[in-house]
Amino acid sequence: MNDIITLSHGSGGVQTNQLINDVFFRYFNNDILNQMNDAAQVELDFKKLAFTTDSFVVNPLFFNGGNIGKLAVCGTVNDLAVSGAKPLYLTSAFIIEEGFSIKDLEEIVKSMAAEASKAGVKIVAGDTKVVEKGSADGIFINTSGIGRIYENVDINCANAKVGDVIIINGSLGDHGMTIMCERNKLGLEGNLKSDCACLNSLVDTMLEAYEGIHVIRDATRGGVAAVLNEISEFSHVTIALDENSLPLKEEIKGATEMLGLDPLYIANEGKLCAFVPEAYADKVLKAMRKHPLGCEAVIIGKVTPELGQKVYLNTVVGGKRLVDMPSGIQLPRIC
Amino acid sequence: MNDIITLSHGSGGVQTNQLINDVFFRYFNNDILNQMNDAAQVELDFKKLAFTTDSFVVNPLFFNGGNIGKLAVCGTVNDLAVSGAKPLYLTSAFIIEEGFSIKDLEEIVKSMAAEASKAGVKIVAGDTKVVEKGSADGIFINTSGIGRIYENVDINCANAKVGDVIIINGSLGDHGMTIMCERNKLGLEGNLKSDCACLNSLVDTMLEAYEGIHVIRDATRGGVAAVLNEISEFSHVTIALDENSLPLKEEIKGATEMLGLDPLYIANEGKLCAFVPEAYADKVLKAMRKHPLGCEAVIIGKVTPELGQKVYLNTVVGGKRLVDMPSGIQLPRIC
Repeated sequence: MNDIITLSHGSGGVQTNQLINDVFFRYFNNDILNQMNDAAQVELDFKKLAFTTDSFVVNPLFFNGGNIGKLAVCGTVNDLAVSGAKPLYLTSAFIIEEGFSIKDLEEIVKSMAAEASKAGVKIVAGDTKVVEKGSADGIFINTSGIGRIYENVDINCANAKVGDVIIINGSLGDHGMTIMCERNKLGLEGNLKSDCACLNSLVDTMLEAYEGIHVIRDATRGGVAAVLNEISEFSHVTIALDENSLPLKEEIKGATEMLGLDPLYIANEGKLCAFVPEAYADKVLKAMRKHPLGCEAVIIGKVTPELGQKVYLNTVVGGKRLVDMPSGIQLPRIC
Repeated sequence: MNDIITLSHGSGGVQTNQLINDVFFRYFNNDILNQMNDAAQVELDFKKLAFTTDSFVVNPLFFNGGNIGKLAVCGTVNDLAVSGAKPLYLTSAFIIEEGFSIKDLEEIVKSMAAEASKAGVKIVAGDTKVVEKGSADGIFINTSGIGRIYENVDINCANAKVGDVIIINGSLGDHGMTIMCERNKLGLEGNLKSDCACLNSLVDTMLEAYEGIHVIRDATRGGVAAVLNEISEFSHVTIALDENSLPLKEEIKGATEMLGLDPLYIANEGKLCAFVPEAYADKVLKAMRKHPLGCEAVIIGKVTPELGQKVYLNTVVGGKRLVDMPSGIQLPRIC
């Protein structure tokens, strides 16, 4: 096998099949994928299905804490998990630039397989396209996923209610700041690590503690600010955050202050915000803190009875600051 | 709204939401999509599901007979249909180059909506990423799809049997030659038109005629040659084609002869090959010919008892020619 991707790898003939066998099947290997049909055939024993898709264009492709492949699996697993679903099956579709290193592709695919296995999902179908040098930037990956929606669970971004507290499972901005610093070689990258992780087992833990959780969303592009603004809009509620309780790693605090950025707007890839009725918050928090991805879980705010459908921050100095929907160009290609 | 895509359309904030509302929701509009959750929630009342994915990178984006959007819907609908499934729901994920025309995007999305509606599928979830100018070539689209596998149907590329005849629903190479001639401005493009079409209703017609059809595959990248070689390998059978019966439009015949190409290797986007036991072939053929997409259906070959798992052509002049798996670079970015 040659050491770089050529256009012939995307032609649907001998070289395509070789690549599929030598790289994709080798690592993704499972009974359903191996049937090699145009569509994977899977048996279901439930009635409510979650179905989602995400394309990944992150730059750089490899970063501290992960790579585009790990990100592509975690991203779609998390979209299913925060919808109250058990992720089951993923597809993966690759758009690869001619000249891309097969060794790097293998590294990416290996990470995808490892992450899928940890999350308990199978990659059951795929697609490979190759475009001419200069027509894409290295590699883009799409993952789509399906999952079983848990019975008795009704998680929905329109379900936030007055009296809910907002729990986050850990520190803000780790992924976005890692990407930003690595891409621009800011010299801070040694201390930073993406939080990229599959959150489905944490969500399971939370739902075992209290299956009536109103909303769960992962705070990716646009950060916690974007997610909370969407929930505020869809649930017609006002959200008050408490600046004192926002969890921030020292190194992220330093980097965002230096660059004049607000960590509420920085992307995460392993953080979720959950809206939980106050009476159940302690139970959910305690359960989360026993989980490796939730050990730093804290309450960062609440849904208030105020009118106006806005998100604001009660600042350390006793003021109030509006947390708007992000606008304009944030960091491109964060995921 | 500005007239070109900017990086802010991919930032997950105000402009992303505007684009989603003004373009995607406007045309894809349906009850499930409109819930705007991280994953679409759909109700299923069956047990066997087909799940597939495809990314589309076709160049040019607009061609006689379709565009990348129509192709993206047809391609995934067809992958489900030829698996013996009724296509139900699609996702669509866009990777767009900064500077891309919003008018063109709207044209593409409109075609997707129209084609989805014709095929009876809903686009229930999506994703939009924007990359810097020069990091992608215009627009790439991924569609993933799920469908209900029909009971009593067992279509599988390992099911071809000695005695099967091979039916195709019409002429070879229309899509590939159209793209090739348009891209290279060969001056022939006026006569050529892509066969890009959703085949699910034709497949339904065929299965109503005989639900025991052994194999159906759409002959896309690599053409009929690639598909038949795959079936030959998976089913461990030898396939004999009859050159006399290969359906070819005059203009395609002219163009392929001029360019020294073999139409068996040219991509189609609205053609399928079906393996049907000889006893049922007439019934299936008659049903197909009443369907607008099957009116030119013919038998092009059969599965022979010969050993060797190969595909060969009985030529017009009475010879035999091996039809190998395509190798090397075919036309890149055909789909």
